[in-house]
Amino acid sequence: MNTTKTINLNSRPVGKPQLTDFEFTTTEIPELKDGELLLRTTYVSVDPYLRGRMSDAKSYIAPFELHKPIESGSIAEVLESKDSNFSKGDYVSGSLAWKETQVAKAKDLMKVDPDKAALSAYLGILGMTGLTAYIGLTEIGKPKKGETLLVSGAAGAVGSVVGQIGKILGLRVVGIAGTDEKVAMLKSEFGFDAGINYNTTKQMSEAIAKACPDGVDVYFDNVGGEISEAVLFNINKFSRTINCGAISVYNNKELPKSISVQPFLIKKSASMQGFVIFDYVDQHPAGIKQLTEWLATEKLTYTETIREGFENIPQAFMDLFDGKNKGKMVVKL
Amino acid sequence: MNTTKTINLNSRPVGKPQLTDFEFTTTEIPELKDGELLLRTTYVSVDPYLRGRMSDAKSYIAPFELHKPIESGSIAEVLESKDSNFSKGDYVSGSLAWKETQVAKAKDLMKVDPDKAALSAYLGILGMTGLTAYIGLTEIGKPKKGETLLVSGAAGAVGSVVGQIGKILGLRVVGIAGTDEKVAMLKSEFGFDAGINYNTTKQMSEAIAKACPDGVDVYFDNVGGEISEAVLFNINKFSRTINCGAISVYNNKELPKSISVQPFLIKKSASMQGFVIFDYVDQHPAGIKQLTEWLATEKLTYTETIREGFENIPQAFMDLFDGKNKGKMVVKL
Repeated sequence: MNTTKTINLNSRPVGKPQLTDFEFTTTEIPELKDGELLLRTTYVSVDPYLRGRMSDAKSYIAPFELHKPIESGSIAEVLESKDSNFSKGDYVSGSLAWKETQVAKAKDLMKVDPDKAALSAYLGILGMTGLTAYIGLTEIGKPKKGETLLVSGAAGAVGSVVGQIGKILGLRVVGIAGTDEKVAMLKSEFGFDAGINYNTTKQMSEAIAKACPDGVDVYFDNVGGEISEAVLFNINKFSRTINCGAISVYNNKELPKSISVQPFLIKKSASMQGFVIFDYVDQHPAGIKQLTEWLATEKLTYTETIREGFENIPQAFMDLFDGKNKGKMVVKL
Repeated sequence: MNTTKTINLNSRPVGKPQLTDFEFTTTEIPELKDGELLLRTTYVSVDPYLRGRMSDAKSYIAPFELHKPIESGSIAEVLESKDSNFSKGDYVSGSLAWKETQVAKAKDLMKVDPDKAALSAYLGILGMTGLTAYIGLTEIGKPKKGETLLVSGAAGAVGSVVGQIGKILGLRVVGIAGTDEKVAMLKSEFGFDAGINYNTTKQMSEAIAKACPDGVDVYFDNVGGEISEAVLFNINKFSRTINCGAISVYNNKELPKSISVQPFLIKKSASMQGFVIFDYVDQHPAGIKQLTEWLATEKLTYTETIREGFENIPQAFMDLFDGKNKGKMVVKL
């Protein structure tokens, strides 16, 4: 029987994930059955939300099991097919285990076309990342032309797409990121109207007021924590906050504390809403169609950080929490 | 020229309002002009939201001016009318100054019928209080039959009505209040399914879990602070929180801190929304109609705390923050 390199969850991270939380092992590849595909992984997506699945707290998806493979969005090449919809040489996307080679059910996978877009794009702008940006902004943010959109984690995978869609929809778009280089990129690459470097800004609340002279109507929040506290002082009447991520607190060992949001929400008749792309599965096809069209007509662009090598997947994941990625982080095998 | 006793804002409260923040004075009553009414105040409503207007921070309504009269919802008798829609002896409701006698524009006032309901009811269940409960619960809470509704400040003016409407709409209703007597009243008077005394409960989060075995779908929040922190651990997927009040923190001198809500909202695709009845003026007539009908058919009942005497208005207001009221607090002149 053949075997494959595999990465398991070795221990549940306490605070920041460590390399020792991951277990490199070799597992057997089972026989291929009807309706299954033998796959060689080509790209693996690493995403902040995986941190949640590494804890055993109840969340919107089940936690990973200890000493079982971690899984995430991946692209793979079909080596062998026992399903009539797929042939050898096809590329597929789906949630796959962190294994070099594996058997998976065909029905859980989607064929992707390497001639229409780079394979890695199907993990980013044409995948969960792009959908999160598009559906989160439009469904929860309900932006109206001329309003001001503020994006935290703006240079990240989701944030950079949110900002661009904001511009397509006719909004003033301001982004918050962690280095001057990223802030410059927000404007030069993604068309943001203004950017704020939270690492070099002492008075975030005032900086936001300056960059958003008409206040904040829609806040697309990827980070939570202190940055989101500063935003509270700048929200407009009837503002909408999309709580998409809280990467700044995912590794906290204790429950993070912040300025109470309730008085601000009441003063401004404002809303905050948690957003998870998995709740909107019926809107994914229309979303992908729109994103593909914008990408083809060059209204959207994307940046990705590509790491190489199966063994570097855990480090790439850990680097997300230090902001070492620009745009979508993927690992090429 | 005639004069009237008047209560001004003497100083902006720091923390809890003090008697010295109020200024008892005598002011002149101007000549009555066309379109105006001369009024004798009969009932004055004291409400937690007035605390916000005593600070000079921007909020959803303008702050009170120093050394100018405070105003709040009131009922008054028409002593003299220069408006064709009103006659001597009519009773009106509207936002009036804390004065025994005053001149006001007829167009800002609504006639109320002392035969249909007690006059004080027009400040409570048939006024802003009832509307806040009804419109907040239905518009923001969007409750569905069989869901669980949790109400904080449940024995208060708004909370006690929220709970009753919840029962009319077929929800399981749980209330949080501050004394055993109030908790008993939630069940005996207002039909709540269960109640929690936050002053004698050590583990609020566990107590809520016990009282809401299916979790919390709708949280009508009048208090904010620690109680609302405990609720976060019990919200269901897609839960809705109506942020109607945050009385527990209104008197804080510094910005209150709480457990960060963002990770909870994300985990549960949950929403929080600030609610102010003034945003829904177009829905007030329909709301009053519904409330009047429920009151007439005895589906709704109400409790009020009536204080007496013009000079006791400030103390009645201050007592709200110590939970000394049951239901709506009004002052009878």
